[in-house]
Amino acid sequence: MHSLSSQVARPLCSPSSHSHYFRFLSLSLPIFHSSKSHPKIFTISPKAPLLTVRNCTSFSAKPSSELRNKRSNSDSDEKLRALRELFSKPSVGIDAYIIPSQDAHQSEFIAECYMRRAYISGFTGSAGTAVVTKDKAALWTDGRYFLQAEKQLSSSWILMRAGSLGVPTTIEWLNDVLAPGGRVGIDPFLFSSDAAEELKQGIAKKNHELVFLYDKNLVDEVWNKSRPKPPNKPIRVHDLKYAGVDVASKLLSLRSELADSGSSAIVISMLDEIAWLLNLRGSDVPHSPVMYAYLIVETDKAKLFIDTSKVSAEVMDHLKNAGIELRPYDSILSEVEGLAAQGANVWLDISSVNAAIVKTFNSACERYYQSLESKTKSKTKMYDDSNGWSGGPTGIYRVSPISLAKAVKNDSELEGMRSCHLRDAAALVQFWVWMEEQIKKNMKLTEVEVADKLLEFRSAQPGFLDTSFDTISGSGANGAIIHYRAEPDSCSVVDDKKLFLLDSGGQYVDGTTDITRTVHFGEPPSRQKECFTRVLQGHIALDQAVFPENTPGFVLDAFARSSLWKIGLDYRHGTGHGVGAALNVHEGPQGISFRFGNMTPLQKGMIVSNEPGYYEDHAFGIRIENLLVVKEVDTPNRFGGIGYLGFEKLTFVPIQAKLIDLSLLSAAEFDWLNDYHSQVWEKVSPLVDGYAREWLWNNTRPLVKL
Amino acid sequence: MHSLSSQVARPLCSPSSHSHYFRFLSLSLPIFHSSKSHPKIFTISPKAPLLTVRNCTSFSAKPSSELRNKRSNSDSDEKLRALRELFSKPSVGIDAYIIPSQDAHQSEFIAECYMRRAYISGFTGSAGTAVVTKDKAALWTDGRYFLQAEKQLSSSWILMRAGSLGVPTTIEWLNDVLAPGGRVGIDPFLFSSDAAEELKQGIAKKNHELVFLYDKNLVDEVWNKSRPKPPNKPIRVHDLKYAGVDVASKLLSLRSELADSGSSAIVISMLDEIAWLLNLRGSDVPHSPVMYAYLIVETDKAKLFIDTSKVSAEVMDHLKNAGIELRPYDSILSEVEGLAAQGANVWLDISSVNAAIVKTFNSACERYYQSLESKTKSKTKMYDDSNGWSGGPTGIYRVSPISLAKAVKNDSELEGMRSCHLRDAAALVQFWVWMEEQIKKNMKLTEVEVADKLLEFRSAQPGFLDTSFDTISGSGANGAIIHYRAEPDSCSVVDDKKLFLLDSGGQYVDGTTDITRTVHFGEPPSRQKECFTRVLQGHIALDQAVFPENTPGFVLDAFARSSLWKIGLDYRHGTGHGVGAALNVHEGPQGISFRFGNMTPLQKGMIVSNEPGYYEDHAFGIRIENLLVVKEVDTPNRFGGIGYLGFEKLTFVPIQAKLIDLSLLSAAEFDWLNDYHSQVWEKVSPLVDGYAREWLWNNTRPLVKL
Repeated sequence: MHSLSSQVARPLCSPSSHSHYFRFLSLSLPIFHSSKSHPKIFTISPKAPLLTVRNCTSFSAKPSSELRNKRSNSDSDEKLRALRELFSKPSVGIDAYIIPSQDAHQSEFIAECYMRRAYISGFTGSAGTAVVTKDKAALWTDGRYFLQAEKQLSSSWILMRAGSLGVPTTIEWLNDVLAPGGRVGIDPFLFSSDAAEELKQGIAKKNHELVFLYDKNLVDEVWNKSRPKPPNKPIRVHDLKYAGVDVASKLLSLRSELADSGSSAIVISMLDEIAWLLNLRGSDVPHSPVMYAYLIVETDKAKLFIDTSKVSAEVMDHLKNAGIELRPYDSILSEVEGLAAQGANVWLDISSVNAAIVKTFNSACERYYQSLESKTKSKTKMYDDSNGWSGGPTGIYRVSPISLAKAVKNDSELEGMRSCHLRDAAALVQFWVWMEEQIKKNMKLTEVEVADKLLEFRSAQPGFLDTSFDTISGSGANGAIIHYRAEPDSCSVVDDKKLFLLDSGGQYVDGTTDITRTVHFGEPPSRQKECFTRVLQGHIALDQAVFPENTPGFVLDAFARSSLWKIGLDYRHGTGHGVGAALNVHEGPQGISFRFGNMTPLQKGMIVSNEPGYYEDHAFGIRIENLLVVKEVDTPNRFGGIGYLGFEKLTFVPIQAKLIDLSLLSAAEFDWLNDYHSQVWEKVSPLVDGYAREWLWNNTRPLVKL
Repeated sequence: MHSLSSQVARPLCSPSSHSHYFRFLSLSLPIFHSSKSHPKIFTISPKAPLLTVRNCTSFSAKPSSELRNKRSNSDSDEKLRALRELFSKPSVGIDAYIIPSQDAHQSEFIAECYMRRAYISGFTGSAGTAVVTKDKAALWTDGRYFLQAEKQLSSSWILMRAGSLGVPTTIEWLNDVLAPGGRVGIDPFLFSSDAAEELKQGIAKKNHELVFLYDKNLVDEVWNKSRPKPPNKPIRVHDLKYAGVDVASKLLSLRSELADSGSSAIVISMLDEIAWLLNLRGSDVPHSPVMYAYLIVETDKAKLFIDTSKVSAEVMDHLKNAGIELRPYDSILSEVEGLAAQGANVWLDISSVNAAIVKTFNSACERYYQSLESKTKSKTKMYDDSNGWSGGPTGIYRVSPISLAKAVKNDSELEGMRSCHLRDAAALVQFWVWMEEQIKKNMKLTEVEVADKLLEFRSAQPGFLDTSFDTISGSGANGAIIHYRAEPDSCSVVDDKKLFLLDSGGQYVDGTTDITRTVHFGEPPSRQKECFTRVLQGHIALDQAVFPENTPGFVLDAFARSSLWKIGLDYRHGTGHGVGAALNVHEGPQGISFRFGNMTPLQKGMIVSNEPGYYEDHAFGIRIENLLVVKEVDTPNRFGGIGYLGFEKLTFVPIQAKLIDLSLLSAAEFDWLNDYHSQVWEKVSPLVDGYAREWLWNNTRPLVKL
């Protein structure tokens, strides 16, 4: 599955910090900024879910057409009226309110109760920002969702087609429509500290003030009783045989990093970082096995802020053993204030930790110094040239140390990833067999029915828990829509006349998968074969790359494009993203992309996807995706005294031979294909039988070059 | 010829602005900065000359051994004593003086009279910085020159082995040895404005002040009568048939860019930019056909600051036709003051224009506003939100617009480049024939003799003017020294037992060449064949690359390394640099390098070298270099509606087949080689006859894969 930066033109700039990779999901569009000045803002999730989540999740919503029927103008107007009424309350006093898509943790997949932007606007796409003033309401979204937003928004809303010529950013618009000196309210939990700061500076140009409304999210007040409860699914211990390293050891390493940085505490808000560090898994959101929580780790203690109803006796034991205390989820701010009062140096990743936490900490620091000053009647805040402020609380703003630790997998995590990939492959083999049968029987299967059937096969595999993202099931022209999400009432039929692109993945107890295959059930035209073959050549070139240690992923990106470039083709998304081990299907800090701002070197044990593609608008889409593990390569030389790295494949599913124009392949590429297929047979055939085994043999047996 | 960033570890950071590419030649070492904080400072010239320049130049110097004999301790001490005596003069008053390698124009090759660092220290290497305090003298240079500096420096000097563990930068050293509040003097002409600013800020940490000594270079005062006169070789008009565009048209374009930027004038100090803009060529320095001058272009006039004794009647006419007035070289500062007094907005590329000019302009601006203020008794300096300061003089700091204009060659320039490359190839063919004869006759030729003979063959070609850099003639282990410069008294013999690397180039009336070939005159061991073949595969991969418009060169760099990486090999220099048309052999702004800070896209008409290599310390060196022109490729598709680019070869000289392990080549690589050689035969055979023609056939005839 691809990691897309933007559907707009090939941007040659890139996120300034890779930790932003999945942290700007809904902020992701040129809403606050123009693309030029803030390219990082273009980082969007390729598979962020719509509200209409089917299967394996605790909630469901209606297709957009139904929503549209329900969402009358008066319904929408009533919500806006109720929201605006709150503007003038004494404790509020604002002229505009911004409602982003985020939850408080910059999650890619969020719980329904946090889908405030969808609730207030009626627009259910995964990316968008709503801004409501006293007399206007506007919604920004990107090209993927223009049609859907047109359908779903009532006439009370202005649709802002972000990225289109002449469309202002939210900041530009606010600066335009508000009288100077306006007060712009936000829920500071829903903005990373970084994002809030940029917003604050942007509107300050017209003397507007950014107002943090800590106490209550205004949309929640309007939503009121019909708002779903926050999820409280039980959490479970992630078995040490899959996690590989116990919590005590992970905390030891983290505390050593804290000590090295001069920090006495860290506030962690990314849900996958908490799950990884504590060897816990949850199911509060679809696709990502995480639970809503904050974590504060100090030198001698650690506190998990969570709804305790999720915590079973076993989990409680597990946490107690690791010295983790429980605190109510809502008490995070008072705890952060307490850290400042104790004079703690607190590590904060301001690209992920929300503005409510960072601002609360900073304000508490100020109070600390003021109180000290008034007591001693002298300036006691001491500046030490080498260590900065000393003798009092300080915020240490750095990228979270857990991001990299989590990205470099240990042997147990890799073993789990290898194992679940074979079971996943078995499910896919059964699925492809079934598909071919249906096509032969001339069954008119829709893209949604196909995805549902795939889920059925996956669900039958031991340890399967959930899909790792919403399946992209794209037939013909739909395959060319990179973020395509088939809807039951509008999707296409899969048949033997069109290319079919299937990008899907599973969450298993022991690992996470993500695979794309493109197939043709009839006779593919030569144009499609040529394009497919060149995508495959790019896939092989990246798969086979060997490179020195300390090489950032973007250096390898051109390998995957070179073959397409030769005939003037390209694709508008990155080539690879990080993948968690039984965790988020998208994770940082590494990546392989033409956006070359991410300087994170690829390291042994990191997992990346290898997913070049080609998309012909209104015609067809091609993507071939395997997951890879970065491994050491035992090269005969080690120039520079450093190690050389390469990749081990995790994914073992046949690549459809009929789509390959063998005459284009070099001898080495031809050998790669036969070797890959022989490995697929060897590894997956023991897991399937009967006709599936026969199918697997037919689809992996050596090709002979004519 | 390669463009090397550093001989130290593979730096994954890179120059922040590509215009620095050749502008930090002598500053180039970690002298002012640590490599971490200022990676750009590592940009050094691979072929910057030593003082000992032989052939085709107006001056000559002795081999270093002779210099050493002459340079006694007392001689050196006397110079230092005389220099220090000047420190306490009332108009000076400094505690330390920094003597860099530069001239006032950031030139790669400089005239002898400007080699002040060599004069004062006795060290004649191309890169180094001398710092003299009242009681200490230290010289910084890099690994290439440690041995030479040890030999040449008297005991009065401390040798600072830049880049070695624990060796301070000049700033660190000054901050260490000077008592706080010291005054550090420099000749502000010899520092770019950028570099002076960094120096100023660096020493300000210990409250030292940077003192600009405009009036007289202190080393020149010591040098006094024995100092060579500044060069005054006649300049010539660069024929329109080679230049392609007349001066009037170039000035028109430049003035249009000035207008677009809101500038009313530009100060140009890079010598190749002046030569290109005015279609003039000179011979003030070796290897680069330029003349010492400054140029100021205003909206309605232009002034060339030059020693008029260089200007013939023909050149005078040419300049008059283009509306260029002449001014004395030394009057540049007063003219710059005049621009400020007139209220001009002056475009200054502060990465190349020296600190004397920029500071003089800024001071004059301040005086302008002060005088206006005192006249009107009110603050008349108006700030306009969109255009910055208005109604008065302003410095507009931008990269020189001529750098890019010069890099994109027009058809006439390309025609000249193609033509001179064939004559250069004919000379090389004759040379290789001669070489093989000498080896057969068992003549013990030294590396220097070989280089001299090559010059002889080149000199016989029509339109030959000069070598384009000091020939790198490296036999055996010397080939592994990337910046190797053979010295008559110490160099090796070329024989049939060792690899021989020859990197050389010529300046012709119509173009500039730069080519490297590596050959073996006997039986190459298989290790050398494997390495050579992998370098060749990298060379072919870059040569054959096709890529979308707007691709910066660094994206292609990995193509040239991939084949070496597979067996754990690499090389520590960039893969390609820009080349001028009958101008400097090194030019920006484009490049192809693993240092990925240079975002300049490759554009149609740009010239780059393609020179991957491999160097095995104390054993052998391999490099294969052709020059390439970026061209449009007529791809069958144009994804994204943009053009796709590739390369046309300029260099046509055989690649030695006996060094190729054909079994490693893919079918496409094999075909490339035969196709290249057939082009070499077709293009070069008409220019040679007799045995040379026979040799050419033998070395270009189709290979057959067994």
